[in-house]
Amino acid sequence: MKFRRSGRLVDMTNYMLHHPHSLVPLTFFSEKYQSAKSSISEDLTIIKETFEQQGIGTLLTVPGAAGGVKFIPKVEANEAKQFIAELCELIAKPERLLPGGYLYLTDLLGTPSIVNKIGRLFATVFSNRKIDVVMTVATKGIPLAYAVAAQLDVPVVIVRKDSKVTEGSTVSINYVSGSSKRIQTMLLAKRSLKEGSNVLIIDDFMKAGGTINGMISLLEEFKATVAGIGVLVETEGVEERLVDQYVSLVKLADVDVRERNIHVTEGTYFQIVNTKEIGEELYEDR
Amino acid sequence: MKFRRSGRLVDMTNYMLHHPHSLVPLTFFSEKYQSAKSSISEDLTIIKETFEQQGIGTLLTVPGAAGGVKFIPKVEANEAKQFIAELCELIAKPERLLPGGYLYLTDLLGTPSIVNKIGRLFATVFSNRKIDVVMTVATKGIPLAYAVAAQLDVPVVIVRKDSKVTEGSTVSINYVSGSSKRIQTMLLAKRSLKEGSNVLIIDDFMKAGGTINGMISLLEEFKATVAGIGVLVETEGVEERLVDQYVSLVKLADVDVRERNIHVTEGTYFQIVNTKEIGEELYEDR
Repeated sequence: MKFRRSGRLVDMTNYMLHHPHSLVPLTFFSEKYQSAKSSISEDLTIIKETFEQQGIGTLLTVPGAAGGVKFIPKVEANEAKQFIAELCELIAKPERLLPGGYLYLTDLLGTPSIVNKIGRLFATVFSNRKIDVVMTVATKGIPLAYAVAAQLDVPVVIVRKDSKVTEGSTVSINYVSGSSKRIQTMLLAKRSLKEGSNVLIIDDFMKAGGTINGMISLLEEFKATVAGIGVLVETEGVEERLVDQYVSLVKLADVDVRERNIHVTEGTYFQIVNTKEIGEELYEDR
Repeated sequence: MKFRRSGRLVDMTNYMLHHPHSLVPLTFFSEKYQSAKSSISEDLTIIKETFEQQGIGTLLTVPGAAGGVKFIPKVEANEAKQFIAELCELIAKPERLLPGGYLYLTDLLGTPSIVNKIGRLFATVFSNRKIDVVMTVATKGIPLAYAVAAQLDVPVVIVRKDSKVTEGSTVSINYVSGSSKRIQTMLLAKRSLKEGSNVLIIDDFMKAGGTINGMISLLEEFKATVAGIGVLVETEGVEERLVDQYVSLVKLADVDVRERNIHVTEGTYFQIVNTKEIGEELYEDR
């Protein structure tokens, strides 16, 4: 089937968006559209320029015989800033207050467009880390973990607090919940994680960090490495911070149950994003 | 900012893909690109033709002042056929056999690209039903539910088997697990579902259908309607079929633990897709 440029642009955009972080050889497109590589290169330049201009991400070109093009999803700093501000506003609504000072977030975590945007933000921060798999703990972190993993093109593994016959043999550890100080168990199917994997930990909420510390201990059992930690909401004012290095989008600064007042601020996202380690080129002005 | 057609095509494709089942007024694009509506219409025609030709979906044009354009994701019948055949092959691998005749599917459900493709298939089958929300039960069905919901642009609600303080007040029911005949409890946060909603039920596995029947009973408590039922894998040979109307992608016809033989066939997907009720225009030849 022969394609005009306009049709190619639409189809290539669709293809690249559905294959983030994957190296696509130019021959794949030139064969698919029966077009010269030079035309494909021109198409990719247009896509790259538009993606960058519109804050969708960028296309990396890898030269040589084994080369090709790779789509790196990236959220622009100002878009991220605005989205996090919106999240803060949504989370600060007094009707979210539940008995015990807990917050109802089920509606936000139940909206795919919000979840996917959160996924794109984390994929931006961690885009130049070596990541083989995203890990989370059941249940609330699951949609976030998938949203990040889809953007990074890696699988998800889910840690459970109860054993299921459908997972086969498991590795379990005991950990101390940071806030309640109770000893709990978490486990992961043996088959689900290869030894030596680089693992990005994603969760919805971090209080003292006990659950995340538990996941880190579990990773040690698999001789795996923590490639990064991302949480949607962290709470402030915890004396003993169990986890040092993490990215949070939102910080719960203060919850006043009596006054029904929730004080929410920006998390560590921009602190982390702006350090060299993560790659400041992500956020430089174009 | 002024756009050339090529840049518009790339950006509009990205926008439409990220906003399935949403009506986008032409003025949105003509203002964004400072282009005449006639040019935008031509762009949309190119995108529509490419989407249909490449099996991405279609664009519906709604005429009039309150009109606009809507992207309906659709997987072509031959692509769906091939994907389901691949799934059958993947699932039939003898190393998936666990003690008790259970199957290890965690790796497939942990791969976002597979999960998202499954989501697109279900979104195709249910594309012309009125659906307000996708419902599933924790844990394994969650990624599938989000994948479908993202394609239909609706929220997800998650039924749990244990109560969580972070969900506020809940409605619970008792149900009989179809295979084990044990009485179990499932519950849903009161806030999470509006009365009278049209609900699409999605799950990973259906044996006798007890869990899905439980979800249907729970929906009655919310005066909600079942808009459809989709499961990834159904097992065959259950005497008492609790659930009559559902779409399955894959059918586990026979598991021979001794011979380590798993027999897997196509589910009800094409039976359902080919009935008038669902809309045969989805699969007619173009």
